[in-house]
Amino acid sequence: MSELGNKKYVYSFEEAKGVSKDIVGGKGANMAEMVSLGLPIPAGFTITTETCDMYYKNNKTYPQEVKDQIEAQLQHLEEKSGKKLGDANDPLLVSVRSGAAASLPGMMDTVLNLGLNDASVVGLATKTENERFAWDSYRRFIQMFGDVVMEVPYHDFEHALQSVKNKKGVKLDTELDAEDLKEVVRLYKEVVQNATGKLFPNNGREQLAMAVDAVFNSWNNERAIIYRRLNDIRGLLGTAVNVQSMVFGNMGETSGTGVCFTRNPSTGENKFYGEYLMNAQGEDVVAGVRTPAEIQTLNEVMPECYTELVAIYKKLEQHYADMQDMEFTIQEGKLYILQTRSGKRTAAAAVKIAIDMLHEGLINEKTAVLRVQPNQLDALLHPQLDNNAKKTGETLTIGLPASPGAAVGQIVFKAEDAHEWNEQGKKVVLVRVETSPEDIQGMVAAQGILTARGGMTSHAAVVARGMGKCCVAGAGELVIDEKAKTLSIKGKTFKEGDEITLDGSTGEVFAGKIAVADPELSGDFEELMKLADSFRKLWVRTNADTPRDAIQAKKFGAEGIGLCRTEHMFFAEDRILAVREMILADDVQGRKKALAKILPFQKSDFYELMKTLEGQPVTIRFLDPPLHEFLPTEDKDIQAVANELGVSIEKVKEKINALHEFNPMLGHRGCRLAITYPEIAEMQAEAVISAACELKKEGVDARPEIMIPLVGFKTELDFNKEVVVETAKKTMEKYGIEVEYKLWTMIEVPRGALTADEIAKSAEFFSFGTNDLTQMGMGFSRDDAGKFIKAYLEDGIFEKDPFQSIDEEGIGQLVKIAVEKGRQTRADIKLGICGEHGGDPASIDFCHRVGLTYVSCSPYRVPIARLAAAHAALKHG
Amino acid sequence: MSELGNKKYVYSFEEAKGVSKDIVGGKGANMAEMVSLGLPIPAGFTITTETCDMYYKNNKTYPQEVKDQIEAQLQHLEEKSGKKLGDANDPLLVSVRSGAAASLPGMMDTVLNLGLNDASVVGLATKTENERFAWDSYRRFIQMFGDVVMEVPYHDFEHALQSVKNKKGVKLDTELDAEDLKEVVRLYKEVVQNATGKLFPNNGREQLAMAVDAVFNSWNNERAIIYRRLNDIRGLLGTAVNVQSMVFGNMGETSGTGVCFTRNPSTGENKFYGEYLMNAQGEDVVAGVRTPAEIQTLNEVMPECYTELVAIYKKLEQHYADMQDMEFTIQEGKLYILQTRSGKRTAAAAVKIAIDMLHEGLINEKTAVLRVQPNQLDALLHPQLDNNAKKTGETLTIGLPASPGAAVGQIVFKAEDAHEWNEQGKKVVLVRVETSPEDIQGMVAAQGILTARGGMTSHAAVVARGMGKCCVAGAGELVIDEKAKTLSIKGKTFKEGDEITLDGSTGEVFAGKIAVADPELSGDFEELMKLADSFRKLWVRTNADTPRDAIQAKKFGAEGIGLCRTEHMFFAEDRILAVREMILADDVQGRKKALAKILPFQKSDFYELMKTLEGQPVTIRFLDPPLHEFLPTEDKDIQAVANELGVSIEKVKEKINALHEFNPMLGHRGCRLAITYPEIAEMQAEAVISAACELKKEGVDARPEIMIPLVGFKTELDFNKEVVVETAKKTMEKYGIEVEYKLWTMIEVPRGALTADEIAKSAEFFSFGTNDLTQMGMGFSRDDAGKFIKAYLEDGIFEKDPFQSIDEEGIGQLVKIAVEKGRQTRADIKLGICGEHGGDPASIDFCHRVGLTYVSCSPYRVPIARLAAAHAALKHG
Repeated sequence: MSELGNKKYVYSFEEAKGVSKDIVGGKGANMAEMVSLGLPIPAGFTITTETCDMYYKNNKTYPQEVKDQIEAQLQHLEEKSGKKLGDANDPLLVSVRSGAAASLPGMMDTVLNLGLNDASVVGLATKTENERFAWDSYRRFIQMFGDVVMEVPYHDFEHALQSVKNKKGVKLDTELDAEDLKEVVRLYKEVVQNATGKLFPNNGREQLAMAVDAVFNSWNNERAIIYRRLNDIRGLLGTAVNVQSMVFGNMGETSGTGVCFTRNPSTGENKFYGEYLMNAQGEDVVAGVRTPAEIQTLNEVMPECYTELVAIYKKLEQHYADMQDMEFTIQEGKLYILQTRSGKRTAAAAVKIAIDMLHEGLINEKTAVLRVQPNQLDALLHPQLDNNAKKTGETLTIGLPASPGAAVGQIVFKAEDAHEWNEQGKKVVLVRVETSPEDIQGMVAAQGILTARGGMTSHAAVVARGMGKCCVAGAGELVIDEKAKTLSIKGKTFKEGDEITLDGSTGEVFAGKIAVADPELSGDFEELMKLADSFRKLWVRTNADTPRDAIQAKKFGAEGIGLCRTEHMFFAEDRILAVREMILADDVQGRKKALAKILPFQKSDFYELMKTLEGQPVTIRFLDPPLHEFLPTEDKDIQAVANELGVSIEKVKEKINALHEFNPMLGHRGCRLAITYPEIAEMQAEAVISAACELKKEGVDARPEIMIPLVGFKTELDFNKEVVVETAKKTMEKYGIEVEYKLWTMIEVPRGALTADEIAKSAEFFSFGTNDLTQMGMGFSRDDAGKFIKAYLEDGIFEKDPFQSIDEEGIGQLVKIAVEKGRQTRADIKLGICGEHGGDPASIDFCHRVGLTYVSCSPYRVPIARLAAAHAALKHG
Repeated sequence: MSELGNKKYVYSFEEAKGVSKDIVGGKGANMAEMVSLGLPIPAGFTITTETCDMYYKNNKTYPQEVKDQIEAQLQHLEEKSGKKLGDANDPLLVSVRSGAAASLPGMMDTVLNLGLNDASVVGLATKTENERFAWDSYRRFIQMFGDVVMEVPYHDFEHALQSVKNKKGVKLDTELDAEDLKEVVRLYKEVVQNATGKLFPNNGREQLAMAVDAVFNSWNNERAIIYRRLNDIRGLLGTAVNVQSMVFGNMGETSGTGVCFTRNPSTGENKFYGEYLMNAQGEDVVAGVRTPAEIQTLNEVMPECYTELVAIYKKLEQHYADMQDMEFTIQEGKLYILQTRSGKRTAAAAVKIAIDMLHEGLINEKTAVLRVQPNQLDALLHPQLDNNAKKTGETLTIGLPASPGAAVGQIVFKAEDAHEWNEQGKKVVLVRVETSPEDIQGMVAAQGILTARGGMTSHAAVVARGMGKCCVAGAGELVIDEKAKTLSIKGKTFKEGDEITLDGSTGEVFAGKIAVADPELSGDFEELMKLADSFRKLWVRTNADTPRDAIQAKKFGAEGIGLCRTEHMFFAEDRILAVREMILADDVQGRKKALAKILPFQKSDFYELMKTLEGQPVTIRFLDPPLHEFLPTEDKDIQAVANELGVSIEKVKEKINALHEFNPMLGHRGCRLAITYPEIAEMQAEAVISAACELKKEGVDARPEIMIPLVGFKTELDFNKEVVVETAKKTMEKYGIEVEYKLWTMIEVPRGALTADEIAKSAEFFSFGTNDLTQMGMGFSRDDAGKFIKAYLEDGIFEKDPFQSIDEEGIGQLVKIAVEKGRQTRADIKLGICGEHGGDPASIDFCHRVGLTYVSCSPYRVPIARLAAAHAALKHG
């Protein structure tokens, strides 16, 4: 214990000034900061995240030393307030709240009004001269403590409350008087004893110890774990616990509570924004049970408090140089700030606030760029409801525009259903009276969320904005019957499975499907992107197979094509027959005959792409998938091929069977195709170079780059290279034109990475195919692993899906090895990545650190990649 | 050119003394050595392998400097012999032979009698006083030079020769006189001109230059490349060329030529062994056209020569301390040694010679061990014809016992057919009048070779012994019609496809199939194995799933089981239904019910194995393959499962479809099974530990080791480990017995190797599964790659089949990385290998160098592995 003696586990808010938020958590750090700014903060103290870590490491206990430190701070708090926990005359009541270094809104547990017991409730009544308030607080406390700390089923309390209301013949809680509430308290204690076999703890210090444990435990409840995974929050020690004197917003008409943002979190507009409820506790606002009033109206109700609040919000935003999300309470005319933190915001708001603050001189360019999370942009880049289509739609009602974007889907009423239907490939809109943290997974699965109750800061609104997901909240006209699974609006009834459309930017709700349109990006967005471009070191190319995709990607700032998958072109209706003929031919002659039919198509494909990308590189990957992917399965298609080849349908079927592979991923594909059938690579090389020659003739600056897939051996590359070089030479001679072209070597087989020094002797350009590298390196077929990857994530075998974010520890090593070995042989080797990871910010960060030249990603992720590349450059230099 | 000026490219035999055989080739080095020993060697010189290398690097040319050095040596040779190349009076004739650093018997080209032309043929006639001999030599020279150097079709010469014989009405070459042979020469020159458009070169120096080029070219002819690949001969610069004065064995009855071995190359017996032909050239003996006489009879024909030869062979064997394979020629009573080299020998001979020489004090223990090539032992370990079965067989004829072992198969008459039938999975015996180097691939493909002509040193005999393949040669009673594809023996006719059996140890040929029996190993073999054991550092375990295999492996010296594949047990008829029931069950209960049926079987399997291997480790790999490998495909089997599960056949089919995987290799298998279905691992752990407990109760020293397959993540291992540890604990508690067990972690997923430092935190034992590591690391499915791996070997993309010998450059790196990282975490980590590579000598050498603890291989390869491990230890310390 003597070792521990030196260590501080509990800090008063005053003492915590300057202590890292990794130790005292975000809330604790902010309290300390606000105290030091001289703001009106209820006194309190913070138990550190290190205590939480120790708690888990020591089998959910902590040593006496920590208990002593808590007791010392509690006594200090009692002295300062002149009140005592559990005191029968003027009791100290405290809140016990979680607070990790990163925000996990609503995911962990909170206990309010702690310190009430049979004695102190009388003290509270005397002191406040409000017996009903005291007993209502007490019954609320038992209910919350029972639920959160003692795990008593919530409905047992509801049931007990209802029985008192029934006996009295009233409907609303507010119709119960002090005597009724005493009866409720009595029944509640019975409920606790029946459910747990224990008496409700009467001792304030015992209550506190139990509440602290409960908050620590909630760090690892399911929803907190899921939230951390979804938001990629890792490496934290645990949550801190904040114990703070209670102030009451529900002490009558001069009391109230509210939540506000220093700027509009939905649009980013620089205008004070928020809501409040008079005579209410803070949880009432956040839970969305009553619909609150706009913050500006507080100026009429309590002008002094409003003026003070405005001064404080300005001070806080200036101090933190970021948009703040604040909670406040007014107790009998006195304003208290309960919390401030950087406010969550929509992507649009994030962009606008960053650029506005830059212009206001509040932040510099680097900070502005870092203020917008790359993945957030996704919401801006995806289609919005088409304005013309909206005019023809049937507007059912208008709720609050809680989170922008469009959502079209089938109605479901439960989070589980949203999840299940989504797994089945259906698009759903989750419709709830109000959402709670239990609904998280359903919200992830849904296209959008529609709630009947709750404001702009309700659970549904906050979480949806965080996810960049469309949400319409507080649509009061909705009548939802969750049991019958129906939704009625103005007499119209919708069932589960009916289609509905939401506009999260306006709050409109439409019947049926409404068409969506491409998003329009604001000038702020362009400015942010230009800033990002000025910092980033990685080039950003796009994966595109069609001029349409290429044009979209160019709009989004792509610097050329990093991956054009030629096989996609093979499937087009006018070519697939020739492709099948080629595959099923018996000999070189047969294949060449079929390839001659495909050549003009390929040439025109490449011509169009290179013309669209004039002056920019177009990287064309040669045929990659196993040939049988192109084979016909239906008799009529088999017959067509048989006719073309002039053989029997049986013969074609035999050939198809012969081409079957047990593990096509590891089979006859990629550069292996060209080794057995060089004529395929010849045809593709001829198509690329012919197109480039024709463009050059027309004065177009075409920049073809050819990419050889699946290289595991230098000898494989050499074979393919020779075919390309020879064919290119012949083709250029035919045209009498010289064109420059580059030859990329894909590194996507582990052996290719391991022998990159050898391969680099023949290769000047490596492009990492991290999809295949992940599949082979992990031994996971992406087509098959879907089922057990889910179990892997749930069991914590995986921290994240390795196909989404590159597995730095394992597969990343192969990339690093290949980069190092490639550079050993050829110091100036050019390196790119063209797997799905090229559009994932965490993977882009890795690509930057490992020193790649470019990333390539799908068109809609190009801006995300540009911003992520800038973040990486700013973070790692 | 001045740089070259300093370098010596051509050495006289005298000068070459002490020069590395890497430079002057094996034959050149031996000539130099023999010259220095004072043996009677025809004078000559050697053009180095470096010249050959330069020749290929410089587009098949070499600089003037080399030509000058050749000319200088040629002049020296002319001076020494007092003869001149092409001289009309007393011409110098030379042989031009290949000679690389490693022996490639018969694979490269040779030209004899070079220097003959229209003038010198007269000189030769005058000098030898034998006009017929001179003209016969000339026509042979044109024929050989035309064939080998000028690529004139061989049959064109045959045709011309036949026309002269027809005109004269004779049948044999010997019936032609000098005048006839002059006519043949005239016709041959026409043949050359017609076929090549060029005159036959009349100038001796031009002939020499052309012959040297031809020898260099033959270094890369197809059969030489195949031979090098088959014999794993790599890293050589090329072939040297030896130019040597001709001596003639065909100058009458006091001339002759022969081939001899200092010991019997078939049995190893320490007795002079060989054959000769009087009045013949050396090629006549090797080609097997005439059947030669036993060497001992030379003592009667030419006693002085024989005595000299005996003295020389003893000197040579003593000098080289190894069994020698010599060629000699007697020219008019004078003996010349043309060649000596370490003699090829059968496995049995290799073992006997090594042990005999050790006993004779000629070599030490290390040398004795190194004298036997591990892969050679294969021939000793495989079954021989059963002696009792032989008695009942129908003996067709008895040929020469040219290479021991047994061969049972269908008759084919062409090498191509042997190859093709073998590809179709048929076992064939190749029946030829005589074999030639063109037949190599067919010989590889055949079970055994039967020839009608040729002796113990004929091409068929030498090559078959090198391959460890059964061969009966010179079975003179055979009448073979290669065109009609029939074989007649004493009036009995066999067609292509008929079955036949050879006994290579006795020369017997049987009709039909004869049963085979396990080999009996000689005392020499045991002695060699014990010597090997005294040197090796690697332990050798075996891969065995049955007590039968385990017993065989123990006999061969296995030190425990390194891999028991439990899935093989699942396929047994009495269990497969329960296995299917388990897989197709809908829930844990259903699976557990089925597993309960499998448990007693597994327990008894493990009981038997551990009992058999008492005191030795038995490593049991938990279920590895994808579950659908066990699924029924036939309706009756599906019905059986449906009955057992009490569901409809349609439901079972649905489930089977749902279990389909696109790439099962990369799918739901290995340790992944236990993560989704822990109950499978529980059952297996219970079976292993129960069996061990029961054995311990009986006083048997059971040593179970459990192996978790396909680990790519530490978290996967941890999950599996927990299941095993918990189940083992419970099981031991049930029995009230403690047993020790070890837990092995397979490293066979590239990511597992890359993160071995992490995995080693939970693992004390790594076993490398290099089959899967190769499949995943190279992206080659072994089931599918068969087709294109062949093309890869042919195109030189692969140097060797990576599934046979570990790919050190690529996959070997993963093993090295895992070993290093594993040791970083746990310095004393134990390491093994249990893939097919565990029985491959080259791979075992790698395992030794990389520092593994043991290799595990199939029972029949255990002695090979023991010897290979000793070789590795002796070579690398």
